[in-house]
Amino acid sequence: MKKILIIGAGRSTASLIAYLQAKSEASDWHITIADRVLDLAEEKAKGHARCTAVVFDVEDHMSRTSLIAEHDIVISMLPAHMHVPVAQDCIALKKHMVTASYISEEMKALDERAKAAGVIMINEIGVDPGIDHLSAMKVLDEIRKAGGKMLIFESFTGGLVAPESDNNPWNYKFTWNPRNVVLAGSGGAVKFIQEGQYKYIPYHQLFRRTELMEIEGFGRFEGYANRDSLRYRKVYGLEDIPTIFRGTLRRPGFCRAWDVFVKLGMTDDSYVLEGVEEMTHRQFTNTFLAYNPKDSVELKLMHYLNIPLDSELIEKLKWLGLFDDQPIGLAKASPARALQHILERKWKLEEGDKDMIVMYHKFGYLLNGQKKMLESSMVTKGVDSQHTAMARTVGLPVGIATRHILEGNIRKPGVQIPVTKEIYTPMLAELQEYGITFVEKEIPYKGY
Amino acid sequence: MKKILIIGAGRSTASLIAYLQAKSEASDWHITIADRVLDLAEEKAKGHARCTAVVFDVEDHMSRTSLIAEHDIVISMLPAHMHVPVAQDCIALKKHMVTASYISEEMKALDERAKAAGVIMINEIGVDPGIDHLSAMKVLDEIRKAGGKMLIFESFTGGLVAPESDNNPWNYKFTWNPRNVVLAGSGGAVKFIQEGQYKYIPYHQLFRRTELMEIEGFGRFEGYANRDSLRYRKVYGLEDIPTIFRGTLRRPGFCRAWDVFVKLGMTDDSYVLEGVEEMTHRQFTNTFLAYNPKDSVELKLMHYLNIPLDSELIEKLKWLGLFDDQPIGLAKASPARALQHILERKWKLEEGDKDMIVMYHKFGYLLNGQKKMLESSMVTKGVDSQHTAMARTVGLPVGIATRHILEGNIRKPGVQIPVTKEIYTPMLAELQEYGITFVEKEIPYKGY
Repeated sequence: MKKILIIGAGRSTASLIAYLQAKSEASDWHITIADRVLDLAEEKAKGHARCTAVVFDVEDHMSRTSLIAEHDIVISMLPAHMHVPVAQDCIALKKHMVTASYISEEMKALDERAKAAGVIMINEIGVDPGIDHLSAMKVLDEIRKAGGKMLIFESFTGGLVAPESDNNPWNYKFTWNPRNVVLAGSGGAVKFIQEGQYKYIPYHQLFRRTELMEIEGFGRFEGYANRDSLRYRKVYGLEDIPTIFRGTLRRPGFCRAWDVFVKLGMTDDSYVLEGVEEMTHRQFTNTFLAYNPKDSVELKLMHYLNIPLDSELIEKLKWLGLFDDQPIGLAKASPARALQHILERKWKLEEGDKDMIVMYHKFGYLLNGQKKMLESSMVTKGVDSQHTAMARTVGLPVGIATRHILEGNIRKPGVQIPVTKEIYTPMLAELQEYGITFVEKEIPYKGY
Repeated sequence: MKKILIIGAGRSTASLIAYLQAKSEASDWHITIADRVLDLAEEKAKGHARCTAVVFDVEDHMSRTSLIAEHDIVISMLPAHMHVPVAQDCIALKKHMVTASYISEEMKALDERAKAAGVIMINEIGVDPGIDHLSAMKVLDEIRKAGGKMLIFESFTGGLVAPESDNNPWNYKFTWNPRNVVLAGSGGAVKFIQEGQYKYIPYHQLFRRTELMEIEGFGRFEGYANRDSLRYRKVYGLEDIPTIFRGTLRRPGFCRAWDVFVKLGMTDDSYVLEGVEEMTHRQFTNTFLAYNPKDSVELKLMHYLNIPLDSELIEKLKWLGLFDDQPIGLAKASPARALQHILERKWKLEEGDKDMIVMYHKFGYLLNGQKKMLESSMVTKGVDSQHTAMARTVGLPVGIATRHILEGNIRKPGVQIPVTKEIYTPMLAELQEYGITFVEKEIPYKGY
């Protein structure tokens, strides 16, 4: 019997656990779910015969080591910065490891030791990063195998609300960590290359430099740039590509309205607002506007940001309650924290609401002297409130990779991400069984 | 005989050293000038009979301690972050100390020990901070002594080029550390309070939220906000004041044009530009603009930032050479570093050019039921290329404070800034002898 340890039973784990449980009888697995909160682990274990829930503090080195020692493979669903101590134990105890997080420098530094110990450590095997790697590398390898030379690679992913649950003027609800949505892009300038020219976008212009695209059957989307597209040249073996761009998808109009928050300074997380405990939504908005006792907050905002009186932007802001006299209700908060709190009141997934993951790649290439272009897109919706599109697209690839390691189909040791044919071919095939399917389509070539 | 040690012989020290040398015979002082570069120290010592130049590495603890031990007072003209080890030695050896820098937290933490040792440590005794404290506290104390209640305090300082040397469309040249000018405001959101309402300005809007003022005989200026005005409430005993604002002065039109650099992302110092070694000014500008092979760089910029074709902004940018095919000529640089390099080519003080320091305070207050307003302003120009307005306004107050400590007129031990009557009265009187004079004027009250 093989023993699987899942550390962290947060909201991304429902589909992962269901997948492993469903395969556990036939594969003769036992699954341990470990969390700081026993109730959470038990709720996820669902009393399954091959599943045990245990309480566990990852910072307790002794109990962490002894728990890992009892298992064959460890899936860390902890926040990204907490993986490294687990990874160090896995190497020492010769246990394989899977995470859905971006590889940190500290994690990368363990590669030699992992190889020496014969330990497989797969990271970035969720949705983004994860399914994006699998689906992009498949097409890239096919183009290159046919003798094509890559000219353009663009890749976008978005966590959105499904059309049937989309009932607000922003066409958006929080389907994942709201804090990450509020702070998206704020870490520093965006970097990419376009037709051989390096381009940089400062954070405060990010939401004005968007790209529009359409996915058949799902309508139009807009993409804003992710922070550093340049590093993917190395990851995907595209060192000489003249255009590479990665981004995040929203429905058209979202970014232009979100830009208001950025321009006002509401997404700043670096200082504490004075007097926030007594502040209303309206006063919060006013605190970013120039003093003028004669004009309303609405007028000052429109004037400041040059927004026309009849703009639908104002409707979006009004709908969120940014001009309401309602108290924020936080004792201490940065602007970003206060904004998040206001947004969470309105952008909440309601009972029965479904989320949707959208992924879109564009490949431009030169083949036999001809410029060609291919689109690859995937849209998948949540099944229920547990098995959301986000939980499924994060959890299923983690589960499938774990299975392939345990069954000996993935054999290469070391700290790695899923970009090899050995990994992406079986994984994409199995994801299709769960409705996570890419549609590839040739389109007329269009450069910049 | 009293012995004075000056550590650091950089460009701010000429007027300080001249002041001390001039008083050294009558006061029976000896001055030691210590610098990492002996030539620099010797050049500043000018062979004066009561002045010795020594080579000195502040990071060499042994030689630092023994040098300090031989003197009665230490003037640190080092960069601000290098004062603390010197200050620790001064306390241990019971030597007084003077700096023109902002008090750091580490420096402040030495207060108890300095008091216990009976050591006087005066900081923030340059121009800004320094002369601003002296001149503002004098008026604030007078108003409060007369029974006035403060309603508004605003304070602006600018290092500019003197009108007779002002011959470019920006009405600006670098008269001080160019790097600080390029990065001004980029550290985080600006904070102030206006008519009782807290206001925050994000960096990317800072140069659009300016205030205009006129100083008789010197024309109009515009002020943009300094980072944190709120902390001056405590410094000046203005805890309950409804409006407090501190800013930096430029000539009108500068900020609107500087805003272009901020909006483009050219002042970002957080990443290294790819391929900067082969980049021209024009390509540098282009790297911040959306790709469009049909439009010129000029057109793309105007379109992007919504600048009218006939705007004088474009003339300012053209004059700086931002659209020129000239190579930048740096091997490695952040955007801010590259911008600084381009600006230094044009904003250089030429032989014979004079700089100018402008300071402007506005005091609004309630006295006997009447709202009143007072302006206090000071303009002083450089004498020659050594004794610039900047060197004089930084160096003279440092020198005067040093003299008052040595003569026993300043007696209170501890880590402090010059906000007491004991200090500002004699200092303002002596600064007047050097032409650094404040003009106070009652004006009609104007609130917001």
